[in-house]
Amino acid sequence: MKISLDVANLKNFVKDSDLKTLTPKLQKAHDELHTGKGKGSDFIGWLNLPSKTRKASIDELTKLGEDIRKHSDCIISIGIGGSYIGVRAALDFLSEEQKIPVYYAGHNMSSGYLKKLFAKLKDKRVSVVVISKSGTTTEPAVAFRLVKKFMEGKYSAAELKKRIICITDEKKGALRAIADKAGYKTYPIADDVGGRYSVLSPVGLVPLAIAGLDIASLLKGAKDAEKELSEAGLDKNLSWQYAANRFLLYKQKKAIEIFAYFYEEMAFTAEWWKQLFGESEGKEGQGIFPASVNFTADLHSMGQWIQEGERNIFETFVVVKDTGNELLIPSDQENQDNFNCVAGKNLDWVNEQAYKATASAHLEGGVPNMTITLPKFDAYSLGQLFYFYEKSCAMTGYLMGVNPFDQPGVEAYKKKMFALLGRK
Amino acid sequence: MKISLDVANLKNFVKDSDLKTLTPKLQKAHDELHTGKGKGSDFIGWLNLPSKTRKASIDELTKLGEDIRKHSDCIISIGIGGSYIGVRAALDFLSEEQKIPVYYAGHNMSSGYLKKLFAKLKDKRVSVVVISKSGTTTEPAVAFRLVKKFMEGKYSAAELKKRIICITDEKKGALRAIADKAGYKTYPIADDVGGRYSVLSPVGLVPLAIAGLDIASLLKGAKDAEKELSEAGLDKNLSWQYAANRFLLYKQKKAIEIFAYFYEEMAFTAEWWKQLFGESEGKEGQGIFPASVNFTADLHSMGQWIQEGERNIFETFVVVKDTGNELLIPSDQENQDNFNCVAGKNLDWVNEQAYKATASAHLEGGVPNMTITLPKFDAYSLGQLFYFYEKSCAMTGYLMGVNPFDQPGVEAYKKKMFALLGRK
Repeated sequence: MKISLDVANLKNFVKDSDLKTLTPKLQKAHDELHTGKGKGSDFIGWLNLPSKTRKASIDELTKLGEDIRKHSDCIISIGIGGSYIGVRAALDFLSEEQKIPVYYAGHNMSSGYLKKLFAKLKDKRVSVVVISKSGTTTEPAVAFRLVKKFMEGKYSAAELKKRIICITDEKKGALRAIADKAGYKTYPIADDVGGRYSVLSPVGLVPLAIAGLDIASLLKGAKDAEKELSEAGLDKNLSWQYAANRFLLYKQKKAIEIFAYFYEEMAFTAEWWKQLFGESEGKEGQGIFPASVNFTADLHSMGQWIQEGERNIFETFVVVKDTGNELLIPSDQENQDNFNCVAGKNLDWVNEQAYKATASAHLEGGVPNMTITLPKFDAYSLGQLFYFYEKSCAMTGYLMGVNPFDQPGVEAYKKKMFALLGRK
Repeated sequence: MKISLDVANLKNFVKDSDLKTLTPKLQKAHDELHTGKGKGSDFIGWLNLPSKTRKASIDELTKLGEDIRKHSDCIISIGIGGSYIGVRAALDFLSEEQKIPVYYAGHNMSSGYLKKLFAKLKDKRVSVVVISKSGTTTEPAVAFRLVKKFMEGKYSAAELKKRIICITDEKKGALRAIADKAGYKTYPIADDVGGRYSVLSPVGLVPLAIAGLDIASLLKGAKDAEKELSEAGLDKNLSWQYAANRFLLYKQKKAIEIFAYFYEEMAFTAEWWKQLFGESEGKEGQGIFPASVNFTADLHSMGQWIQEGERNIFETFVVVKDTGNELLIPSDQENQDNFNCVAGKNLDWVNEQAYKATASAHLEGGVPNMTITLPKFDAYSLGQLFYFYEKSCAMTGYLMGVNPFDQPGVEAYKKKMFALLGRK
């Protein structure tokens, strides 16, 4: 693994003996996952997705991206939940690599938002990716109606066949029917990969390839992680370590996990993590509440609470070792602010010191914390992180005794909304 | 009050008798606040800020904005915490009113972020607002060094005097010294208004006026709220109601409050609320943990957790009655998605049904919830909301027995960071 996990700042909270006692349970969770005998095992297609994805498929998607970019200034990606957050997480994290802008739709129901988007793209060459397993989730379905109308105002039916791509169920559902009838190109959403575990499937790969990201490296990172994390053992398996520690913290009433990052490019990495863990664990009246903070900004906001509030939290820092950016702080003859001590230093170096200071201060304030370190803002690192979290989340779900692959509670508001909308 | 608070969905959680029992405590908190005898009473300048702000000052700031916009395509606003979040909350909420773009700096320490910003503004006419009481907070101080260098590369010293405005301490501190020496225009940060309560002071008003917002209406909304919320009584004072209900929910182990909004324009309203309540309450080992969700997007993410996770949460919806936007959903002859039921409806109307469905579903899932309704996305409504939350937060802090105006915990990481930076 090129990513690492540092749990030194947990030592006053999680005992070695508790970890040892937990080992049989970890082994059981690991085995259930790998033999397909655990809860929800009809949804573990993500487990071997990186190693199963053939080079030919990657090459095809890369070629698709090149083709689409030839006649497109930008794309609109329509999706919500797992069909939105992972794509955005990768695009933001790898923003330097992105070759054309991606705009989102179908993740909200705001008239103003879509009106502004259409006005902005009026004179642009646009292609569209629609991501929906069923095609009947309200947000993306209604957005697709509006986006299709916008596109029909710009292009002929023949041209639309080159510009609209549907990622949907291979055989059934509304979006499948629409795509087949209109002759849109399609990519399949597998039956055994749930939305929040789908970023390394066509759901994520198609829009990422079109945007110009290096999906081969993304999958290579994930594949290397898949291999290493398939080995049992608390000493060598980072997912075991992360899952075990957070489970033991939860058992001692640490009810909230805070994902803390130091670069805005990671805001949606945090959102992706929140969906993954929140939807997987938050059921049957239990679950660690996932929250995130954007440091150092939020050190001047939620920082007070974290330092001195109720001691029901733990924190996971996710940091990037080498950002690849340099901006040197200028010296100042007057030095009224007394910051000549950092003159000539890279601003990102100061940020790194802020991380170190924060981890130490929060620990002293009674907040157990861990740190995940990524080598760089590159596709390989992100692929590792995605897979690491997916594997950890499955493990933690099994430790908690829930099915980490279903989301029965998401239906509740949908049913009520359909009634209000008069939809049968 | 033009904003309203609906607590009907609390009735199975908060008893009328408990509210009644709490009334003397509410009265005491109210009196302590208004007579300046409570904790931290040297920081209650915000209490009468709306009514004390003279029309001449508002006119002067409005004029300043017009003048700056004549020679500026955009501004950079440098600040962190209370010198950043409130400004951004207002600008996002009132994005339709904004006349020139505002870019932020000093709220992070990212080399890549600032490099990109400078590249983007290379050929633009730029003015700068720097907001810092002391001028020695690392993030804005270091950012100001970098921004000043960028500006010096574009403009003469004489021109910079027209383009750099400092909002800082009236007499002392590093930024005061820098501004006086260079001859920059300044506006004062009062000693009795803390950062998170400062959005209706020059800290917020100066950048908002420059961006072209209607600060007169913002203050009018706040002033009307100030008047109404100065009247004691649980039946008529919304701040009493909000403070009392959340306090009683916290007493029954509802440890997390979730601020739920349905329009992305409110993402930073939620961040502002998180700072206000998090910094005010999170101390002495207690405090409700403030979190936020962006619906309906997050209904397909955190929605599962909220519906079925640990029952240690309550939810406050903040909705806007009339968004002023219209985008009608097209009919579709095929109707494969079966959404012709909403054809001809405004997308925002569907969003409103989603709110109603969600409040009802979450209540059935065991999540007590309240709803704050704003009439419109306008400055008057936002002024009311700002003041309502400030007043409520002070009340809740007093109910909890803490000083809602200090933030001692913010120093912990700063001290450690200064040591790592070699700063004396």
